[in-house]
Amino acid sequence: MLMQEMKSFFYPSSIAVFGVSNDQRNLAKNIILNCHRMAFKGEIYPVGRHPGTVHGRNILTHADDLPLDVELAVILVPSQFVAETIEACGKKGIRHAIISTGGFREYHAENNVAEEDLIRMAAQYGVQFIGPNCIGVICTNSGLCTPFNPIQARSLKKGTTSIVCQSGGVTTQAAYYFSEEKIGFSKIVSAGNKLNLNEINYIKYFMEDDDTEQIHLYLESIENGSELIALAKKSRKPIVVFKSNVSATASQIAYSHTAALANGVSIVDGALKQAGIIRANNIHEMTVCANVFRLPPLRGNRLVVISLSGGFAVMIGDACEKYGFMCPPLPDWLLRKIESFRRGGVIKMSNPMDFGDVHDAKALIYAIEQCLTLEDIDGMVLSLMYDPDIGEAFGGVDNMMEMLLNFLNELGEKVKKPVAVSFFSERKYIDEIKEIGMFPIFNNPVESVQALSSLRSYWSRKALSQS
Amino acid sequence: MLMQEMKSFFYPSSIAVFGVSNDQRNLAKNIILNCHRMAFKGEIYPVGRHPGTVHGRNILTHADDLPLDVELAVILVPSQFVAETIEACGKKGIRHAIISTGGFREYHAENNVAEEDLIRMAAQYGVQFIGPNCIGVICTNSGLCTPFNPIQARSLKKGTTSIVCQSGGVTTQAAYYFSEEKIGFSKIVSAGNKLNLNEINYIKYFMEDDDTEQIHLYLESIENGSELIALAKKSRKPIVVFKSNVSATASQIAYSHTAALANGVSIVDGALKQAGIIRANNIHEMTVCANVFRLPPLRGNRLVVISLSGGFAVMIGDACEKYGFMCPPLPDWLLRKIESFRRGGVIKMSNPMDFGDVHDAKALIYAIEQCLTLEDIDGMVLSLMYDPDIGEAFGGVDNMMEMLLNFLNELGEKVKKPVAVSFFSERKYIDEIKEIGMFPIFNNPVESVQALSSLRSYWSRKALSQS
Repeated sequence: MLMQEMKSFFYPSSIAVFGVSNDQRNLAKNIILNCHRMAFKGEIYPVGRHPGTVHGRNILTHADDLPLDVELAVILVPSQFVAETIEACGKKGIRHAIISTGGFREYHAENNVAEEDLIRMAAQYGVQFIGPNCIGVICTNSGLCTPFNPIQARSLKKGTTSIVCQSGGVTTQAAYYFSEEKIGFSKIVSAGNKLNLNEINYIKYFMEDDDTEQIHLYLESIENGSELIALAKKSRKPIVVFKSNVSATASQIAYSHTAALANGVSIVDGALKQAGIIRANNIHEMTVCANVFRLPPLRGNRLVVISLSGGFAVMIGDACEKYGFMCPPLPDWLLRKIESFRRGGVIKMSNPMDFGDVHDAKALIYAIEQCLTLEDIDGMVLSLMYDPDIGEAFGGVDNMMEMLLNFLNELGEKVKKPVAVSFFSERKYIDEIKEIGMFPIFNNPVESVQALSSLRSYWSRKALSQS
Repeated sequence: MLMQEMKSFFYPSSIAVFGVSNDQRNLAKNIILNCHRMAFKGEIYPVGRHPGTVHGRNILTHADDLPLDVELAVILVPSQFVAETIEACGKKGIRHAIISTGGFREYHAENNVAEEDLIRMAAQYGVQFIGPNCIGVICTNSGLCTPFNPIQARSLKKGTTSIVCQSGGVTTQAAYYFSEEKIGFSKIVSAGNKLNLNEINYIKYFMEDDDTEQIHLYLESIENGSELIALAKKSRKPIVVFKSNVSATASQIAYSHTAALANGVSIVDGALKQAGIIRANNIHEMTVCANVFRLPPLRGNRLVVISLSGGFAVMIGDACEKYGFMCPPLPDWLLRKIESFRRGGVIKMSNPMDFGDVHDAKALIYAIEQCLTLEDIDGMVLSLMYDPDIGEAFGGVDNMMEMLLNFLNELGEKVKKPVAVSFFSERKYIDEIKEIGMFPIFNNPVESVQALSSLRSYWSRKALSQS
């Protein structure tokens, strides 16, 4: 499929929404509501059985009334009418559809006439489609937003990660969650039953899409493992996969959810790893990956840990060992120099380093720069504190933090090594620091270590595949 | 040690704070600030070398100027002056002290004169103390708040969990985190070097304390394993332990942090498990435990899963298998009955159950009650959705949720089985639902399963120790 064709699913100049009515319980009209809320700029044509007005637009009672150049159809009519809707689309020259309707093979696996008709009709008219049994697309770049549940558009944040989600509920939750973590997303597509387009098509498109820097997938089934692996090996953008449906308990519900067939855990693990695909175990871990892939490469195992709390330094030490990192001893001259900045003189410097006795931003900057520049060090875990009483004196979170985050950005650029930073503070301040957006912020120092281990996996496999 | 004696550390009628000065950088005066912010009702006497006024109180330049009945001393003077301060306290009849000062064995392990003097003097005058090298106590019941960094008291929430934390930084973070998770805490004590009082004393007190229903510990070292185990076996309150310092990488920093000696992982694991102590791997997991121990007992492996999103049902299925739970088939009559409530008729009912096609609160209530009452079912995982567009029509989160949470509370009481509930929605709405406080709310459905596994462990070991 051509890039330009795929683009029609994300940046259509106009859409027709099938299945709209004035009924209070009508779901299709929420698709229009959501596009309005997201300030979608394309034309929107509601189509339904009965005339009326929804969200200020007249309902067209026949596809014939549509203009000729509609780029995308969004279909939420009962399953037995989907094929004829596709036919109507085909006749009007609409070649792209999102089929939201459920009740296909995930409900009746055998002799599903509605599904057979749909496949036949789509093939006859050359209509490519997302779904069925999905909620379609949210694109923060174009404002297209096709879920049929109301979306809180103001809460969604633009970003550079694009996401494929097999499940509709997970799609919505991922959209909110990536936004709440201040990472945002470029596009999210709910793939549903993947009867026509599947993750391979989406990944290919996202690999070329200028607004996408990372590709994340929540999959209940893997449609074409060998092609997925081939793509991942080729991709210059990190690919992160959260694969569910890895248990017998889940397999039945996964089938009746998105007609997903289980793939064995070990097969999945081995194949994805081999291809340099990074695994996530939940949506939260997807956001952790999205954060860490904004950092420079991690090309080894040797970390410096600087923590403003000794207790967190201990936890980070445990985490380093768990994830296979070393914390090499630092040169004596450097430790003595850093100790000269202490206030109470009651904490010895080492790696991991308890910085709790140094109340001096310049000393912190000095230590970070000196430690990260050391030749035998590959990266850093930085566990800082934000104290609102001090922050207020500087005029709030922003003023204090921008300088630090700016320094971390420039230092990372210069030495080409990652610094995984977290703050201990109240969540509202951590959120404010995240909101600045200049630098990825992890939720706690152990998450920093876990994230660096994903980064190391990615770059060590990249190095292998390039050698 | 007597209960009444321990109470002096949490509910003192008066405190003397040693080490206070007018200097802008003085840390001890923050102790007074924090007590003010927490509305501590006892008398506060600042003591320092130079006269002056802090937070509206005159600094006493000599311990002799203190009245005779001061119940607790909080000491933040340089380490070489701690022993003489204890002596002064002893002479004034002060028998309880929080020694915040660092620089004892965690800094100089051998021939530490300051520490030897401190031990001798405390023994001579019968002074019991918390620390040294700690931030002392925050008690949401009395308002005592002795950390020497400014605490955002308005953010702290009263609760029924009491916490022992070896590290000061972790103490502060746990106080905020338990509050942000809307669980709150009764008391938190930063134990520091545990030179005099240690976790055994605190656990004994919390076991008797009427304001404490659960006991949580963050430990970098275990002082007296056999006594800990004996206490845990006796305790009618759940005991949760997050043990760090389980790696060679952490051991050095842990020693120089709180003079903690590492305990091997396997020893710790085996011994704690045997005693019915529940393990947490981080502060977040401590809050998950605090939530789940509010639910009725879980006495078996058999769960019903009801999810408003099919995708989450799949993830929950995977989690059930991971944590050793079964999802037994439900009786046919019940499945057919629940299917009769569907709107689209496009999802088959099973266990795990995708409730996404049933848009009817009464049907949900019916399904929950019927399923949980089944004889071969031990508990439930409930994954719900909060939609602000619907919520607004009901007048906001509270009105909609109170009915549901009330129902869950009453049902749990009646059938004596746990329901682990989570919502998918934006975080702000999840926070509002948590804030209602009537029922424990988990952050996501996989967390629900993990929490139930802790609950099952607890009750299966309780059953063993009672048989």
